Amino acid sequence: MKDFLTELLPKSYYTTKDPKGKARARKLARELLLVGKDNEDLIKKYLEILIDNGLPKMKNFKPKKVLIVGAGITGLVTGSLLKQAGHDVTIIEANANRIGGRIKTFHKNPFNPTETPPFQDPKQYAEAGAMRLPDFHPLVLALIDKHNLKRQLFYNVSVNPDTGNTSGHTPPVVYEPFDGSGAWKYGTDNPNWKAPEKVNNTWIRTNEIQMRKKDYNDPEHIEKLNKGFEMKGPDLRKTTSDLLNEVLDPVRDRYSDVIDGKRVNKPFEQWIEGWASVIYDFDGFSMYGFLKKFAKKKNKKPLTDNEIEAIGTIENLTSRLALSFMHSFLGRADINPNVTYYEIEGGSWMLPYAFLPELYNNIVMNRRMTHIEYYDPKRNPGYTHRFTSAKPGEKVSVRTLSETKVSDGKYDHEEEIFKADHCLITIPFSSLRHVSVSPAFSYKKRRAIIELHYDAATKVLLEFNQRWWEFKNEAEWKNGLKEVKKAMGKEQYDELKRIWMERDPRRINAKPIISNYVGGGSVTDNPNRFIYVPSHKIPGSNGGVLLASYSWSDDARRWDSMEEHDRYLAAMRGLVDIHGWQAAMFYTGKGKTQSWTQSPYAFGEAAVFTPGQMTSFHLDIPTAEGPVHFAGEHVSLKHAWIEGCLETGTRAALEIHKAL
Amino acid sequence: MKDFLTELLPKSYYTTKDPKGKARARKLARELLLVGKDNEDLIKKYLEILIDNGLPKMKNFKPKKVLIVGAGITGLVTGSLLKQAGHDVTIIEANANRIGGRIKTFHKNPFNPTETPPFQDPKQYAEAGAMRLPDFHPLVLALIDKHNLKRQLFYNVSVNPDTGNTSGHTPPVVYEPFDGSGAWKYGTDNPNWKAPEKVNNTWIRTNEIQMRKKDYNDPEHIEKLNKGFEMKGPDLRKTTSDLLNEVLDPVRDRYSDVIDGKRVNKPFEQWIEGWASVIYDFDGFSMYGFLKKFAKKKNKKPLTDNEIEAIGTIENLTSRLALSFMHSFLGRADINPNVTYYEIEGGSWMLPYAFLPELYNNIVMNRRMTHIEYYDPKRNPGYTHRFTSAKPGEKVSVRTLSETKVSDGKYDHEEEIFKADHCLITIPFSSLRHVSVSPAFSYKKRRAIIELHYDAATKVLLEFNQRWWEFKNEAEWKNGLKEVKKAMGKEQYDELKRIWMERDPRRINAKPIISNYVGGGSVTDNPNRFIYVPSHKIPGSNGGVLLASYSWSDDARRWDSMEEHDRYLAAMRGLVDIHGWQAAMFYTGKGKTQSWTQSPYAFGEAAVFTPGQMTSFHLDIPTAEGPVHFAGEHVSLKHAWIEGCLETGTRAALEIHKAL
Repeated sequence: MKDFLTELLPKSYYTTKDPKGKARARKLARELLLVGKDNEDLIKKYLEILIDNGLPKMKNFKPKKVLIVGAGITGLVTGSLLKQAGHDVTIIEANANRIGGRIKTFHKNPFNPTETPPFQDPKQYAEAGAMRLPDFHPLVLALIDKHNLKRQLFYNVSVNPDTGNTSGHTPPVVYEPFDGSGAWKYGTDNPNWKAPEKVNNTWIRTNEIQMRKKDYNDPEHIEKLNKGFEMKGPDLRKTTSDLLNEVLDPVRDRYSDVIDGKRVNKPFEQWIEGWASVIYDFDGFSMYGFLKKFAKKKNKKPLTDNEIEAIGTIENLTSRLALSFMHSFLGRADINPNVTYYEIEGGSWMLPYAFLPELYNNIVMNRRMTHIEYYDPKRNPGYTHRFTSAKPGEKVSVRTLSETKVSDGKYDHEEEIFKADHCLITIPFSSLRHVSVSPAFSYKKRRAIIELHYDAATKVLLEFNQRWWEFKNEAEWKNGLKEVKKAMGKEQYDELKRIWMERDPRRINAKPIISNYVGGGSVTDNPNRFIYVPSHKIPGSNGGVLLASYSWSDDARRWDSMEEHDRYLAAMRGLVDIHGWQAAMFYTGKGKTQSWTQSPYAFGEAAVFTPGQMTSFHLDIPTAEGPVHFAGEHVSLKHAWIEGCLETGTRAALEIHKAL
Repeated sequence: MKDFLTELLPKSYYTTKDPKGKARARKLARELLLVGKDNEDLIKKYLEILIDNGLPKMKNFKPKKVLIVGAGITGLVTGSLLKQAGHDVTIIEANANRIGGRIKTFHKNPFNPTETPPFQDPKQYAEAGAMRLPDFHPLVLALIDKHNLKRQLFYNVSVNPDTGNTSGHTPPVVYEPFDGSGAWKYGTDNPNWKAPEKVNNTWIRTNEIQMRKKDYNDPEHIEKLNKGFEMKGPDLRKTTSDLLNEVLDPVRDRYSDVIDGKRVNKPFEQWIEGWASVIYDFDGFSMYGFLKKFAKKKNKKPLTDNEIEAIGTIENLTSRLALSFMHSFLGRADINPNVTYYEIEGGSWMLPYAFLPELYNNIVMNRRMTHIEYYDPKRNPGYTHRFTSAKPGEKVSVRTLSETKVSDGKYDHEEEIFKADHCLITIPFSSLRHVSVSPAFSYKKRRAIIELHYDAATKVLLEFNQRWWEFKNEAEWKNGLKEVKKAMGKEQYDELKRIWMERDPRRINAKPIISNYVGGGSVTDNPNRFIYVPSHKIPGSNGGVLLASYSWSDDARRWDSMEEHDRYLAAMRGLVDIHGWQAAMFYTGKGKTQSWTQSPYAFGEAAVFTPGQMTSFHLDIPTAEGPVHFAGEHVSLKHAWIEGCLETGTRAALEIHKAL
């Protein structure tokens, strides 16, 4: 028993004899990198279909009856492609009055002027779901431009608004494929375009130590903040970002090289092999397992628990430590201070709604799928339909329920059955879990539907009637406070002041904290975790909606258990902790909150693998089950991103279009 | 880079030179096994305090003012012990109208006869939380007996009710301590007592293959069920339970031996060292990591993915695969077919409410802690109170908010401040996360409050007007159905029959499925996962409440996202899947559901470690922070069990009682 652990020695991709496992890792690498048959660049292919040409013309074209389940962006994009190619498309949506799925903006309802707007200032809006679009996601950016929606910069890092030049149109979308077939471009250049300078004025507050992000850069400040985590030893003067990169770089070195200080992919074959080796060797790790058991710093020492706690807190890994290494590793490429992000002026909701005029007559609202039955002569020759009284030869039939709320707790359930030649399921597997499927899908698909982990993400948004975070000096604070005092009257002002002063850890009558930033996010170890201010003022509005708390996984679940009304108070307490009691005086009393795990048709924020799930299940997720097809973020390897919806949606449209 | 993984080779407890790590593992082993100073048996000590004698008499006794946060079983037990010892006790509870915490029964409110009972038959009740008490948890069993509540058997496995003899009183509670100080006993023997015979008549249904549990025992049936998981190879004829035991036995062999077919603990020192080695070597593993990377079957081969999927499904590990190995490993000792369980006649709620007469004047309802401030001259000599205007020298002050609902979405918040010499916090760390603490607790306590994972558990309960699962033959089904048809009228009966027949995968007009069992649980890979029928009929009632779905973690979260009214329909669909459409005809239309993650003051089912959390945090969880003490299931190493509440509650009472 004493040397039992020698058995555990894992074999590396480079040394093991496991042709099956390696082949699987290579397949996954190609899926991840969107390398098609004959090493075609699939992103370029999808751009040409989705943006330029639509689906290809087919010889002997015969229109198909296609049923799409879910009017999220995946369903809409696929529906649009198939409809334009001449197919007969129906999209069913469980919500009675909203399309867009996890693209959702809290905003004044343009279709119902009598509905109370979400915020006091009806011009204000804020994102409940998708909010930032990285510049290396060409499908979504080009789709926005194609629909003539206005893109503007999303500042993940606070900027100096007096710098840069963002007048005129946004830069074109350019994609450089790996297959040498030449750059793809949408839009025209704007030579004057220049993003404003990043200044990193936002806050870090951990272990009751607070400083600006830009200050967590010089040795003394770094040491001070790190000591809050009781860190010790030679790396006390390294930022958590540097420490994390130090231990991740050996993984990155497998598929890329550092040339002139920049990461450049290795030549094609090595690039794919490198990624295959990363998947093979590390997919079984959690991020915790990687940091604790594998990671070695430059000095060959492992990370200490305290270093892992500091990295987890500041780099947003803590709540997902037990989840897959691959997810957080990939995510770090998506969300980091060097990326340029965009957003849609007016709100992300505009993207799905841009499809509404075209698809209005194809969408049936208030239809929740409860059963799906299909016939595939190749797989189930003797199958008899059971749930939907479909006739032999009818390929797909879907049973739905409407969930019209009649009164509190009472619902009027009506059933409707939809039949089609092909069905595209775009809803999350967490929600598909509750749908009866007959005949059963293939074994591995069933396991993926049962096991694929969906994560929690929760936002708490608070509206303020002035953008106090932009105040540059005490005078602006003084004027601002004077204005609110005048507006609400001395009595109410004094009462509110008393309440929030008592909650301000800096104690009574402290001076206002001058944040002085535009855009960007702050980080804290208090429950709020991540705080984002809007990147742009909304024309005609003095106020702004602040994302007072954005958290994931276990961080988010600690918010989910609270009733909504409690979340606003708690989120404000976290804000006051960092910004002082004065900030609370500008609260309009209007907040909104979104828990994606508590969203009845979303069933979670997004798919996030637990260790090993990518290898166990992913290759079986996109495959069609007879006439039933799959698309959505969970079908892609860009979990939680719109780009993954568009990649898999385009792929599925092509699959259905070309099916015999 | 090629042999990077050799670095990963973990060192075993038996070979490594890591005195600090080993000492920590030994401390954890002693905590787990309740070994006190001088190797005292702490369970016996706690039994003598909690059941026999109360807290010890102190020289120069001075009563203390003690504030207890939370009127769950931990707060009540500690409050009772301290009050009886002469201390001045106040217990604050966030709920406005219920004590008991995660001990909660859906039952007719005895204090408010005008309140609508939860079920159609007001005699019926069912457990939302704690429901089964293993016979090796002496504190809780003796506490029940001491309060003259009636214990009865809980059948985790279905029984033949015509066997056994459970008349007269239940057997006494006996505890055999490891320190040789002699057996502890409460109650008197009942020589005639005999538990009914276990018959395992309940169902397994996975991959659309259904059989009785007792049949999953002979080679052909085992093979048939296992093939549903696409298992292959030489172990196709082993049950999942045998396969799992095969890979867990080498771990158990470290601290126990098999003697005459039974597991017997090794001699004292080896027993502790064995457990220390298990913690040291395996706490960093997830159950998935253990099964996938460590586990070797008797034939030296690793488990296949399909074997892990089968084990996970039938042995209830799947949803917690990414969580700590230690949790599921310990849990397997708690929940298995060989354990004898008890329940309280009338419902688990009776245990906390048994304390009500004694503590009625000590409990303040509708007080939710928002801030806690404390003074500890040893730690923070210069500390000035900030949130609660406490005077210097006042040891603890707690700020609370009442959350009286005035109307939908409107709350009347009133504040009250409580002051005390000592404070005992019994609320979950997931809820403590939202409390402002000043001065900050010690670093590791803070991290535990931030990171300690709380898991999801969800129940869906459905009431039936006949206990159709007990029907022994077709004639009983025929009579039963005739009765309901008569009661509801032909028209409604036919409509319901049509609806549920269409959802029955066996198709229309199939014969009823004769379950024929009393008590016990069924398992399925459909979303319901685990189904329990009541162990006893309720006197004067023909019906019964069935636990139609009991699930954990990701399995539970897929229910949590649904609105409550949807859960009943979905749970019934899962029942019909296994029991046929006929079962649905007895539904009274009344269901109840409990999601512990959606419970505003519970913030989750229970603490469940992620890999490494036991080693990283556990030893820092029970330690007092100046005058602030901690108790509850999360403070014990019996997560989710009442026994852990009683162990830590008694320990904390002693700590406060003896404090200077």
